[in-house]
Amino acid sequence: MARQKEADFVTHIASRAHDFPQWYTDVILKADMVDYSIVKGCMVIKPYGYRVWELMQSEMDRRFKDTGHVNAYFPLLIPESLLQKEAEHVEGFAPEVAWVTHGGNQELQERLCIRPTSETIICSMYSKWIQSYRDLPLLINQWANVVRWEKSTRPFLRTSEFLWQEGHTAHATSDEARQEAATMLEVYKEFAENVLAIPVLTGQKSEKEKFAGAEATFAIEAMMQDGKALQMGTTHYLGDHFSRAYDITYLSKEGKLEYCYTTSWGTSTRMIGGVIMVHGDDRGLVLPPTIAPIQVAIVPVAQHKAGVLDKAYELHRELASLGYRVKVDASDQSAGWKFNEYELKGVPLRLEVGPKDIEKDQVVIVRRDTHDKLFVPIPQLADSIDELLKDVHATLLARALDFRENKTVNAVTMEELAAGVNGGFVRAMWCGDRACEDSIKAQTGATTRCTPPDELQIHLDTKCICCGREAERLTYFAKAY
Amino acid sequence: MARQKEADFVTHIASRAHDFPQWYTDVILKADMVDYSIVKGCMVIKPYGYRVWELMQSEMDRRFKDTGHVNAYFPLLIPESLLQKEAEHVEGFAPEVAWVTHGGNQELQERLCIRPTSETIICSMYSKWIQSYRDLPLLINQWANVVRWEKSTRPFLRTSEFLWQEGHTAHATSDEARQEAATMLEVYKEFAENVLAIPVLTGQKSEKEKFAGAEATFAIEAMMQDGKALQMGTTHYLGDHFSRAYDITYLSKEGKLEYCYTTSWGTSTRMIGGVIMVHGDDRGLVLPPTIAPIQVAIVPVAQHKAGVLDKAYELHRELASLGYRVKVDASDQSAGWKFNEYELKGVPLRLEVGPKDIEKDQVVIVRRDTHDKLFVPIPQLADSIDELLKDVHATLLARALDFRENKTVNAVTMEELAAGVNGGFVRAMWCGDRACEDSIKAQTGATTRCTPPDELQIHLDTKCICCGREAERLTYFAKAY
Repeated sequence: MARQKEADFVTHIASRAHDFPQWYTDVILKADMVDYSIVKGCMVIKPYGYRVWELMQSEMDRRFKDTGHVNAYFPLLIPESLLQKEAEHVEGFAPEVAWVTHGGNQELQERLCIRPTSETIICSMYSKWIQSYRDLPLLINQWANVVRWEKSTRPFLRTSEFLWQEGHTAHATSDEARQEAATMLEVYKEFAENVLAIPVLTGQKSEKEKFAGAEATFAIEAMMQDGKALQMGTTHYLGDHFSRAYDITYLSKEGKLEYCYTTSWGTSTRMIGGVIMVHGDDRGLVLPPTIAPIQVAIVPVAQHKAGVLDKAYELHRELASLGYRVKVDASDQSAGWKFNEYELKGVPLRLEVGPKDIEKDQVVIVRRDTHDKLFVPIPQLADSIDELLKDVHATLLARALDFRENKTVNAVTMEELAAGVNGGFVRAMWCGDRACEDSIKAQTGATTRCTPPDELQIHLDTKCICCGREAERLTYFAKAY
Repeated sequence: MARQKEADFVTHIASRAHDFPQWYTDVILKADMVDYSIVKGCMVIKPYGYRVWELMQSEMDRRFKDTGHVNAYFPLLIPESLLQKEAEHVEGFAPEVAWVTHGGNQELQERLCIRPTSETIICSMYSKWIQSYRDLPLLINQWANVVRWEKSTRPFLRTSEFLWQEGHTAHATSDEARQEAATMLEVYKEFAENVLAIPVLTGQKSEKEKFAGAEATFAIEAMMQDGKALQMGTTHYLGDHFSRAYDITYLSKEGKLEYCYTTSWGTSTRMIGGVIMVHGDDRGLVLPPTIAPIQVAIVPVAQHKAGVLDKAYELHRELASLGYRVKVDASDQSAGWKFNEYELKGVPLRLEVGPKDIEKDQVVIVRRDTHDKLFVPIPQLADSIDELLKDVHATLLARALDFRENKTVNAVTMEELAAGVNGGFVRAMWCGDRACEDSIKAQTGATTRCTPPDELQIHLDTKCICCGREAERLTYFAKAY
């Protein structure tokens, strides 16, 4: 089939080079991931988008359980007085919460906010549940919806309601809590790379960018194809801030009453936006195989001919029985329409089978990532699919890593920084002062993304790129979502 | 170990015979299923309780997918004007919704309710998504939290916020929608019996008891050990009520614009309360194996002796590798304490292994449901566990069915009805009039539970048990949760 004709089908998607935000909107709507709702700032996650989330959840949940965490569920609604107990926390979140003032026909005595995050309600329970060192560590995760009243929203990236997971842990010592925050950051990084095929930088957020109420916040940061950064997950070492505010104490082995040290960590449906913006192309979505709702789309060619549909279903049965997510499209749409449909939906492999293929006991496989076309003998199909899906993942990850490295520069002058963040990440020395951070933002539009850990620090210079005073640490700067 | 000493551990649980509601509260708290929160009427589902819900979700979700449904996610918040479009629906739900009036620091132009159920928001999207007969049927399920402002609450059974699934489907014809409501009722029944080991009655709810806005509501109803009924799930045939209110139309094959017919169906964390009240005993929870977080609790006896812990962990590895959920308790608590702990938590099988057992290459297994003690040669362990778990399920189901049948009576007089519902279900003829339903409730405290389908109808009498006028259909009456 002619490439020209195929191209016609996708002209309704803006090109990335021409208008990246419009391309994003076109892709998520045309690929049936999401829809706008009547409720301002709230999205509907359609079945195809939700299936991606389910597959991500299942991969994450297994990792959380493997690292000793269990799931629980805490109330959606938080009394105002409870929210207010941790001063920095309430200051950070109060301006963006939704308030419930009436239940049924009655005005409430105290208004309740819809959780923007659950530290407050969870800490109020931990205070009750934790008595002795035997109760520690307490390692709980929650899958939930949260609401943050956003003025400007974009599906998946920033919506007033979103779905997420939030881990909340309590520990006997500061070291142990710091280790938990580091461990979960590593879990997020490994998940991003091995499931989403997205390479991420890890490091610590600045004081300005950290979570309201945290002692330290750590993040995984990814580069989108427009060179902007997306924060894809954060872990927080909360010190004893919340333990003191919510009175979480334990009796130590030595019989002393001590405050706990706590952490929290979260990732959300925002990551779906990241997958789209890292891997998508001008034909639509490109999904990493592990989270693709359909891994292999079987398109029968000349399906009215004897034996074609039978063979298509036979291959479906074989692959499905091996655990692959497979779909046969036997609809009355043209083969060309189907080719485009599954490209738009980011299906990693398209399998074509027609009368001539059946004669030769082979199928045609087309990769979504490279558009490579392969002829595969049917007896070798299962092995080929396995290898190909692994290779699609590896190719996506390597391509995204190359892209990021090519678009990341070192800067020692503000001019270099300003040029670099116009389409990429910049490494630069920063003194750590808020004044310089604000000034860099005002001059370039870039924010601090993260400061890498010591072992990944390099010294580009001895001076802060902004104020010229002594600076010991390198930080990543970028424009960000 | 002496039974007397064991009994001491559980004296803090009220006996079912003496105070059933107190027994329920004791069990859910002591077994660590749930806790009360600072938010009135809202519960915290603790990890052990939440794990039961996860296992239930996984079993239900598979059944929904096997019957052609997909999951999606719709907004939590519903504008007041949208809620009001279906007259009966808003009348039923408005008195019990929570209202959001402020976002951040601003008063909203229109207040939003937290979904008490999602017909309104989902129908507003279906109106947009459904254009042609090709878009039908649309078969979507949502896993979500909902809020209904309840005056009097009990964990799992009735709380202001609860977790549930809600299926929402749209069809071209009335027959097809009716069939969907029937199919999902059957799915619920099969799930109740084969997963929860709870026998259920199925049938249609009265006009008074049906869902606000439905044409017909069908339910699964189970008998608790106090003889009261628990409605464990409902399916609704909504006719074209919501299609007309929300303008869900499609172009038929013949090119005519037609209204869709819709259904909805839901089950919730309430079912966990049912499991507790159907199977529990005076020692605590009794969990059906399919939803037990721990299926086999391994208790090492004389664990300080050489080889005991090694053997316990070896058995753990063997059983875990076969897919069983197993725990070794090597804590420094006494064996007696552990026996009671896993009885309280409803673990189906306790496996004891000590030096003498190791010598004989055997283990001791104690069933939670019957307290039977078996000596099982280790080489036969895997097969025995498989058989025993199946038998525990079958025994629980048979026992619950016997209980229900023994506590269900036929009545032809109001005296018989009043006596019967004092601890059980009553079958009686009813004319179908609301006046009689209200009168029966006023006289006996019982409500109509469900009217069985035609094929399960029997004619006890020709007259309504209340008014004496002609009555053709038998209905179940009971006091209910």
